[in-house]
Formats: sequence, C-alpha cells, structure tokens
Amino acid sequence: MNEKNIYNCWLRKGDYTNLASLEEYLEFCNTIIVKENKGVMNTAVNELKSAIKRITGIDALVIGEKVKNPHIILDLMQNNNEIGAEGFAIKRINNSLIIQGADDKGILYGVFHLIREMSTGKTLKQAEIIDTPKNKLRMINHWDNISGDIERGYSGKSIFFENDCVIKDLGRIKDYARLLASIGINGVVINNVNVHKYETKFITEEYLPDMARFADVFREYGVKLFLSVNFAAPIEIGGIPTADPLDVDVINWWKETATKIYKHIPDFGGFIVKADSENRPGPFTYNRDHAEGANVLAKALKPYGGIVIWRCFVYDCKLDWRDKSKDRAKAAYDNFKPLDGKFMDNVVLQVKNGPMDFQIREPVSTLFGAMENTNQVMEFQIAQEYTGQQKHLCYLVPMWKESLEFDTYAKGKGSFASKVVDGTLFDRNIGGVAAVSNLGDSQCWTGNPLAQANLYGFGRIAWNVDLTAQEIALEWVKLTFGNASEVVEAVMSMLLKSRDVYEEYTVPLGIGWMVNPNYHYGPSVDGYEYSKWGTYHYADFKGIGVDRSAATGSGYTTQYKDFNAKIYEAIKTCPEELLLFFHHVPYTYELKSGKTLIQHIYDTHFNGVNEVTLMRENWISLKGKVDAETYYLVLSKFNIQVEDAKEWRDVINTYFYRRTGIDDINNRTIYK
Amino acid sequence: MNEKNIYNCWLRKGDYTNLASLEEYLEFCNTIIVKENKGVMNTAVNELKSAIKRITGIDALVIGEKVKNPHIILDLMQNNNEIGAEGFAIKRINNSLIIQGADDKGILYGVFHLIREMSTGKTLKQAEIIDTPKNKLRMINHWDNISGDIERGYSGKSIFFENDCVIKDLGRIKDYARLLASIGINGVVINNVNVHKYETKFITEEYLPDMARFADVFREYGVKLFLSVNFAAPIEIGGIPTADPLDVDVINWWKETATKIYKHIPDFGGFIVKADSENRPGPFTYNRDHAEGANVLAKALKPYGGIVIWRCFVYDCKLDWRDKSKDRAKAAYDNFKPLDGKFMDNVVLQVKNGPMDFQIREPVSTLFGAMENTNQVMEFQIAQEYTGQQKHLCYLVPMWKESLEFDTYAKGKGSFASKVVDGTLFDRNIGGVAAVSNLGDSQCWTGNPLAQANLYGFGRIAWNVDLTAQEIALEWVKLTFGNASEVVEAVMSMLLKSRDVYEEYTVPLGIGWMVNPNYHYGPSVDGYEYSKWGTYHYADFKGIGVDRSAATGSGYTTQYKDFNAKIYEAIKTCPEELLLFFHHVPYTYELKSGKTLIQHIYDTHFNGVNEVTLMRENWISLKGKVDAETYYLVLSKFNIQVEDAKEWRDVINTYFYRRTGIDDINNRTIYK
Repeated sequence: MNEKNIYNCWLRKGDYTNLASLEEYLEFCNTIIVKENKGVMNTAVNELKSAIKRITGIDALVIGEKVKNPHIILDLMQNNNEIGAEGFAIKRINNSLIIQGADDKGILYGVFHLIREMSTGKTLKQAEIIDTPKNKLRMINHWDNISGDIERGYSGKSIFFENDCVIKDLGRIKDYARLLASIGINGVVINNVNVHKYETKFITEEYLPDMARFADVFREYGVKLFLSVNFAAPIEIGGIPTADPLDVDVINWWKETATKIYKHIPDFGGFIVKADSENRPGPFTYNRDHAEGANVLAKALKPYGGIVIWRCFVYDCKLDWRDKSKDRAKAAYDNFKPLDGKFMDNVVLQVKNGPMDFQIREPVSTLFGAMENTNQVMEFQIAQEYTGQQKHLCYLVPMWKESLEFDTYAKGKGSFASKVVDGTLFDRNIGGVAAVSNLGDSQCWTGNPLAQANLYGFGRIAWNVDLTAQEIALEWVKLTFGNASEVVEAVMSMLLKSRDVYEEYTVPLGIGWMVNPNYHYGPSVDGYEYSKWGTYHYADFKGIGVDRSAATGSGYTTQYKDFNAKIYEAIKTCPEELLLFFHHVPYTYELKSGKTLIQHIYDTHFNGVNEVTLMRENWISLKGKVDAETYYLVLSKFNIQVEDAKEWRDVINTYFYRRTGIDDINNRTIYK
Repeated sequence: MNEKNIYNCWLRKGDYTNLASLEEYLEFCNTIIVKENKGVMNTAVNELKSAIKRITGIDALVIGEKVKNPHIILDLMQNNNEIGAEGFAIKRINNSLIIQGADDKGILYGVFHLIREMSTGKTLKQAEIIDTPKNKLRMINHWDNISGDIERGYSGKSIFFENDCVIKDLGRIKDYARLLASIGINGVVINNVNVHKYETKFITEEYLPDMARFADVFREYGVKLFLSVNFAAPIEIGGIPTADPLDVDVINWWKETATKIYKHIPDFGGFIVKADSENRPGPFTYNRDHAEGANVLAKALKPYGGIVIWRCFVYDCKLDWRDKSKDRAKAAYDNFKPLDGKFMDNVVLQVKNGPMDFQIREPVSTLFGAMENTNQVMEFQIAQEYTGQQKHLCYLVPMWKESLEFDTYAKGKGSFASKVVDGTLFDRNIGGVAAVSNLGDSQCWTGNPLAQANLYGFGRIAWNVDLTAQEIALEWVKLTFGNASEVVEAVMSMLLKSRDVYEEYTVPLGIGWMVNPNYHYGPSVDGYEYSKWGTYHYADFKGIGVDRSAATGSGYTTQYKDFNAKIYEAIKTCPEELLLFFHHVPYTYELKSGKTLIQHIYDTHFNGVNEVTLMRENWISLKGKVDAETYYLVLSKFNIQVEDAKEWRDVINTYFYRRTGIDDINNRTIYK
C-alpha cells in the first residue's frame, strides 16, 4: 500500500473518510453515461470509474443510454463555443454532472480535473467549470539513452530502455502515460536530444515496431510520441555521403523515412533536433543555416501532420575564457533572430527559458518576443541538474512562472513571454512549453517524492500559466498528503520558499555556475571559470560579475526591448537578483538593503543553511502524519541537503573571504 | 620498419654502418659458447645472437664446447666473489669476450649490457665490467583492469586484458618481458592495486591457468609475476563472512589459496595490497593493524618463498577542508611508524616517494629512515598522472634520483633513502624500487615515444642509483635515435630540462595539485581546494602555502630527522623549491633571487611556456634526422604541450593576479 502511494504520486488513494463533499458525490456517482466508448474516451471512462471507486467506494455502472436517476455524463460536443481544442466543461445540471469536451482528450482532461476536485473534497453543487489549455504543445523531453542511463537523470534508470534494449514490459509506461494525461501533457520525447549510435536507428525498421508499441500506449492517454533524431542520420544510417539539407538524396531520404515512420505510427508527433549544439552535427557543416536544416525535416513530416521541434541551444562551446568580448548569453539570439520568417510553419523553435542553461536564476531569453514570424516553445528543466539534483528540495514552479510572465515588450507593455509561446501575441498556430523530465525508474519516479511536485506543477502551468505557484502547490500537497492542515501548511511552506532558499546558499545574484564541472552538483566556485564553456564570474580582488551592458560590456542588454534593455543596462535599475548576471560589481557596493555585496553574500549563505535546517525539522514534525515510506525517503534527502548546504555556505563564504579579506560584520564562522 | 623502430624502443635496429668499434666486434662475434642452454640462459643466447646479427650482420654459431678462434663465452660462475646475485661481469680475455654471471639472470643482464655497449659503439678491447644490481626488487606495477582499461593509463588499452577477458595471444607480452629484462626489471604486477570484482578471482582456479601462462612468458626473461589482491577476497570469493586477519577460517583460506597458486606458478612472486586506502577494504574494518593484515598473507606465502608488498598509501580521504589541523602528508608515517618490527620478514612496505601523491615536486616521504626493522620499497610513478600524462615531455629520472639520494639522517649523515630501500642501511634482506607503468597497447607502448625514456630510466636507476640522469638519458637517446650528435644533443637537452620546465608553467614551489579533479590534467587552481582529499593550497588575498611547521602549523616537519627537520621548519632555510609545501608565504615575500613570490610565479610561468615553445622548435629542427613516424608522433604531442602550457600559464597568472591585484613588473599579458 505504501508502495502504491509513492508510486501513484498525486493519483494515489488517499484517506477520504472525512472528505467535505463525500455525501454530495454519492448522489451522482452510481452511473456513468457515455455514448461511444473507445480509445481515449474509454480511458476516460475507466479512470473515472476507478476514481469513483477509490473515493466513494461505489462501483459505478457504465451505460450508453440516458437514465433517470442522477449520473455523470461524458459528452463529446464538437461545436461547443465555450470550449477550445482539448478543453472541457464540467457542469452541474439538476442532480447530474456533465463533462463536455471538444474532443475525447478534452473529456479525459475533464475527468482528471473532476478527480482532482473530488479527491480534495470540493463541492460540485454549482459546478460551472470551463477550461481550455492555453498551450497547444505541452511536452516532456526525456534524455534517456538505450543503455538505460539518463543524461542528467537523478531518479534511477530509464523506464523506456534497459541494457541497450527497448523495454518489453509496457506496464510502467502505461502508468506513466496516465500520470502525464492527469496533468494535461500531450506530447513526449522518449530519447535523449544527444542521439547516439543505436538511438539514431530508432527511425528505421529495426526499431520502429518498438516505437509503435510505445506510441500505442501513449495514444490511449492522448499523448503523442516524438523522437529525437540525429541530423547526421542520412550519413550514419542512410548510407549517403552527406547530411546537407539541400542535397536531393538527403531530402528524399528524410521523406522516405517519414513515410516509414507514419506507416508504423499514424499519429507520430514529429522530431526534436539538437543540431550544431555542443558538438552535435548540424547544418553548419554544410554552410547551411538552421532554417535550411529544420525545413528539410519539416517538409518530410508535413504531409503527415508532423512537426519539427528545433532546439536553439546553439552556442560556441569552445570559447576562450581570456576573450571577454565573447558572450555565450548572446548566442541563441545572434544565431536565430536573423532567421525569423524562414522556418516552415510546422517548425517550432524550442528555446530554453534563460540564455545560459537552467541556472537557479537567469533573465529570460531574448529570443522570446524577437521572432514575430516563427513558432516558439519555451523549454524548462524539471530535472534539477543545477538546482540540487532532486537531493535538494527546489520547487521550480515560481521560476517557470517568472519566465512565462516576463514582459518582453515585443508589442508594447503586456507582451508576456507566455503570449509569445501560446501563439496569441504574434498569431502563431503552434507553440507551447516543453520540459526535461525528472523521472526515472525509482519507486517514486523522481528519486525524491517531493520532486513529484515539479512534474505536477509543470503540467499545470503548461495547461494554464495563470494558476499561481501557491494554487498548484496546494493541489499537489492535498492530492499527495491529504487535507490535514498541519501537513498541508508545513509542506506548502517548504515548497514555496525552497527555490529562494536554494539560491541563498548557492550562487549569488544571478551569476550562475560555480558548480563542480560535469557533475553540476556541489560548489566549485572556479569550476567553470577557466573553461571553454562561456560560463564565467570574473571574481577578482575588487569585485565580481559579468558586464553585459552596452556601455562597457558585451552588449547583451541590447538584445532586450525598450524598458528591459534600459533597466538591465544600468547598475542602479537592474533587478538586484540579476545584478551579477548583468554587471561587474565591487564587493563593497551598497545594495538597496543597505548591505554591501560581500555582506549580502555572507548573510544569504548563513541564512540559507538555517532555512534548510528548519525545513528538515519541520519535516521531522510530520512523522506519523505522512506515510512512512515517503517520510523516511524525504528525510534522507533533507539530511543530505542540510550537509551539502553547509558545504555550499562554507565554500562560498571562504572563497570570498579569501578573495577580499573582508570579515563578516556579525562574526559568524568563516573558515579562513 | 618504422613500425618496428617505434615498437622496439631502445632495442630497435639502428644504423650501425659508421659504428666506432664495429671492426673490433667482428673479431669475436662468430661464435657463442654456452654449456647448458635452457630457460633464461637460452633467452640470453637468443638475444645475443640476434643482436650480433642486427649490429654486425654475423650469424653467430652457438656451440657448447670451447673453440680456438675468438668467441663470446657465457659462463655461469656461482662462486664468483666479484659478482652478487643477478650480477654479471664482462671481460676481455685475449681476443675473446667472457660474460660471467652468478646465475642465469646475471648472464641475461650481462648480455643486454653488452648489447647496449655494442649498439652505441663502445670499445670492448679492455673490457672489465663488473656489475651487480643494488636493489633486489626492481618492479613494475600495472594498474590494468580486466575491462582492458588502465587506471591512469595514457597509452591506450591494457596489453594483458581486453573486454573483460585475459588476452590469449602472448606475443606482445613476450616482447614486453624482453624490454623489461633489457633494463633489469625482475618483477611485474599485472593488475590494478584497486582490485575489482572479476580481478579478485585471479587467484582462483578460474583464472590461475591464465596467470600461469603469463608467468611462463615472464619467467623466460627472469621476471617474476606478482598479483594485486583484494583484502576482502575471503568474503568476496571465499564465502567466509569475514576477512579478519586473525580469524582461523581466513588464515586457512589464504594458506589454501597460496598452495593453489604455487601449484600453477611455482616461482610466483607474491601479492601487492592496497588496503584501507581510498575506500579499499583492509584490516581496520576488524580493528586490526596493518601488520596483522599483512602478516596473514605473508604467513600463507612464506613456505613458497613469496612476499607481500603492502602499500603505505593510507590516509583519510574524507578530510574536512575546514579543519587545518589535519594534514594528509602526515598520514603514512602516523599509520606505519608505530608498527616497525611487527611485520614478518617476507613483508615489504611500498612507500610512495613523496608524502602526497606523485606531484611534480614533493619532499621525500618521512617513512624512509623511520623504520629500522621493516623492509621497504620506494614507489615511483612512470605514468605521468600529474606530470602531463605523456602528452607533455617530462623526463622523470632527475626527480627519482633526488628521492633516492635524499639523506634521511636516520643513522647520521649519509643515510640516503637509496640505502634504506636497498637494505644496506639497516641490514634488511629485501627491498628495492617499484614504479607504476606508463605502458599500454599503443604502437610505441607509451603513447609518446619520448616517454619511453622514463621506463628505460626507471629500470636503469632501479639497477644502479649512481648512474646520473645525464648518463641514462644519453644511453637511451643513442639506443633510440643513434649516435648523430645533432640529434643526441637536441633530445638530451629537451629531456634534461623537461621536468623543470613542466614545473615552471604548472604548480609553483612544491604546493602541488591545482589540476582538474579526477582527470589530473590541466589547470584548476581551486580544483582540489575544498575537497575531501587533503590537497590544499590555502591561497588567500595575502599569501599561499601550507604551514607544516611545528611552531605554527601541522607539525609534519617533526617527522623528519635532525638537519631535515630543522631546515624545513624555518621559512629562511627551507629549500625554496619546497617553500609552499612547508610554509604559508605572503605574495610579497622576497625570495633568494630578490624577486617577490608573486613575481616569481609570473616569471616562471612566462618562461616555462617560452621553453616549451623552444623545445618544439628544436624538435622540428630534427625533421628528417629521426624516423618519420616518431617525428610526427612526438610533434603532435609537442603541439598539444605548447597550447596546454599556455593554458596553464594564463590560468595560473590570472588566478594570482585576480587574488592580489599585483601587476607583472615586466608588463607581459596577464588576462584580468
């Protein structure tokens, strides 16, 4: 039972005996009416039936005809003006409940919404819920290799691959598809964007039957399968001497490949491509641009309705740290902005939320708002590569919301990044959000059970960015731990402060990196300082930070529009949480708080550790109030987090003390 | 032919047409007389015959009876007072040459000595050479895994193992045994001291037949086979619940294991053990000391004449960088000194030359001279783990000689470390030197052909520490590249300055480390600064270095005797090349040269790069004068070395500039 709990995440069986509206649900839960019961609709019915059983104990009757007594009706209404694609309405009519959907996916999402409402005891007496997802693409990217290893995976091995083979038992895949559908995810890339030798063959007859089996499972839950492909596949598996996107043989090879794929998977979603990025092959080899590279794939997929998701994580990863004129932050914009309008309409550019690489604090990428005639997806990382690797608690929804709510000023005030990617700002037809999975084959999927909140949260804001981080946390906590106020309050408070706390004891004021090279866990202040990766802090005896101003620095600020360009440009107006990202600042610089920069660094690091210690104590106070398996697993992570936060605190403080010789004004312990 | 050249190292076929004494050799080279021609003696005869053919073109006749015409006679003389075990004499009597040996190994070494003399054209007219090796143990340690990978290997894969199997074709092993014998090596450990799962089974029936095949090949060349064993073997493969060295089952298991081994390999050398070291199992688990741990193995091997080589690389590898009172340098002495006299007489302690770990500059380990009643071996590393990984030229013989010639003052002045390990100082029966191999399956064995000089040099000083680094280099250069003076002078000069040059552009004044963690290549000044490995430099805004004095530091200096303790203790008397190893010194401290410490750092780093650039130019001047394969391979390494030396220079200079804000007085480029 414990096992089931931790494994079923937010769909677990809770304790519903004291549920507020249980009596109310009993009225209409005896009968489910559905006309045509197959495919996704069938999934929806089964989920609803089993949730009713779980929550109310009722074995609901599923029938195709209307009955007189109160019931739940699942109703496909393709011409419902209230509801957009994949949307649903839940309405109370007399004593019955109607779930309407523009399509069968809408019904399924409506059912999961209803389950959420019922599991947390919400009243449905006046139900009048209408909900359509803001983003067409709501995707999870797995970085799984056929070896079974997951690049940047912190939750065990792959659920798709094992020992260079595709997994045969699809049981866990089905459970996974269900979790995804329950939070509105509609697309999944199952293999790493770094496509290695064997994975390159996934689009051949050798592996397509396996891929089709995966697609079948996902399809039942309304999730489309996508694959990462290798831009050099025409060479590596096609036997063609080139991968030049303008070469006729290459063009034909991709066309034939697409045809093959769609024979196996008629609703195949499309390709994701990491090209000319961190030593991956790409169009640059042939003096072609990224539009030419993407379009050759897009042309091949177009007849079948497939899309190409083209990653913009393109930068020179062989920079010289000595040359301060080069700025990696500028690269995506410099590479892609000139290509606006050149991509086919079934190409989507996938842009990381920030200009660097999933750091705990970055400004929003300048590409959002910069390409009026190009589809875009914002990419997040649920996997906590730089944010504690699921050993540390770091609820990321607040960070993602900041990115989506960033005002790009592309068409004046109110031009939020969320409106760029959902297509409304520039009237684009596709777009949305994607995120790198934090899942593996660990019992609880995410290594640390509390990290489930990030997967859940991503799905929820992908659906509706207007949900607050608090609202989402509250849903997740109640679904996971039940409604007992002591538990809800304690876990909510941990989640909501966790990102700021992680930032406090790690990397100050947006400077980023300072992690152990390759591993990206734990402090190494100079770990990336003299590297080729373009990841510098330039700390010297006087100050720290990267001058990205137009006046005296790399000029990255000029990639922003209007207001943003202005406030980032000047030290005094730059938001302080990003101060060191944009400016090189003396240690003695006085912040708005009245503290010097160096004192701010000391204070946040001491405070961050104190906060983590409190979190751990807070968690211990929940012993016996959450299931034992989750309790001990989470406690083991907090134990690590407390120790490792101390290591961060001491290394950072010592590093800056040794740089500056400036003492902490409060005389706390800094090792000298 | 090129291939042969590079592969045959110093035994290659040279150009002997202009050899000084060729005419002289022709006199006695027609006939080789040997009485009993089998085993090692047979090897000696074959090597001599083939060398005669190579050098003079003569097909020598091998016969058992004396003849009248001039000849070479190989003569076993067990009661020759002039010659000790494994020693030889080469004498000219009338027109003939006699090679006398106390045993057949002596004859073989005599033959290889003669080949050296003849290949370099030395006259033998008055030959009266008498030579006995100083050290009984002259060993090579391989860190090869059965996977085929070599821990800290920079020359390709293992020559013993491949893909989790033992190599079947012994051809290359035989060539290797020959190379070893030609430089007097008489023992080889073929597997990594970190003994993993499969390698633990090498001492079982599953692998012993394979080990015996190796031993057979080595035996023909007078080399004994040793194996690294896992102290926890009784548990892992013995099925015993403990590895406690005082447990009766464990004692018996090791005895039975020894019996088994000697059935397969009657002259098996013994075990080498890394116990309680860097997370390897050992006696500490059972509250036993290292003597108890070593003796259980020694007892098992004793009846068969085997020995136990017990490594002293024992230190706490989970140190806290915050705690300056702990000093890794002190660990070996603290762990082993109290056990003096407790080890059985067939146990040898293997002690690394310095107290840390094969850095470019370290003082000599305090254990040498500290244990009057214990056998010791000095361990070097031919593999250039911290000294450029065979991409950089670093001729290590001068460093090894420094260590062996170090005066320990254990029994007053003149108590050299070489006399400790060769047994003469404390009248010990076994001892010697060992070194970690720099070999792999690369065409030239050592990745970089010039790195062959280190293997050659190790063998030569293992035989006779009184040979100078110059003498050894000269032998090697002439054997490798011939006698043309331009080549000899150029390569000699490179070799002889290479260690100082490497030190100049890397880590200053004995402080060590400053390398990329794990890889140990390239600069990362703080890479090990906040680690658990006890490897710190404590650079801050004022100064750098580890205070190991008794007065104000860790007190490591007190482990030295008399004069050494005194000079290391005080900043003014401490040899400056070790200044930062022993003292924390302000950047503005004035060195004997009159330069400040910081200026010294800048100067050496600029100079080191200049020297490497010159070396490369010097090498280019040899184009056409050395064989093309060697030329281009070495050039490719110099190209890397020049670039990477610049990286070292710039990172180190920038690091210290950013720490201090002190400019180079000569205004050379330091990136700020």
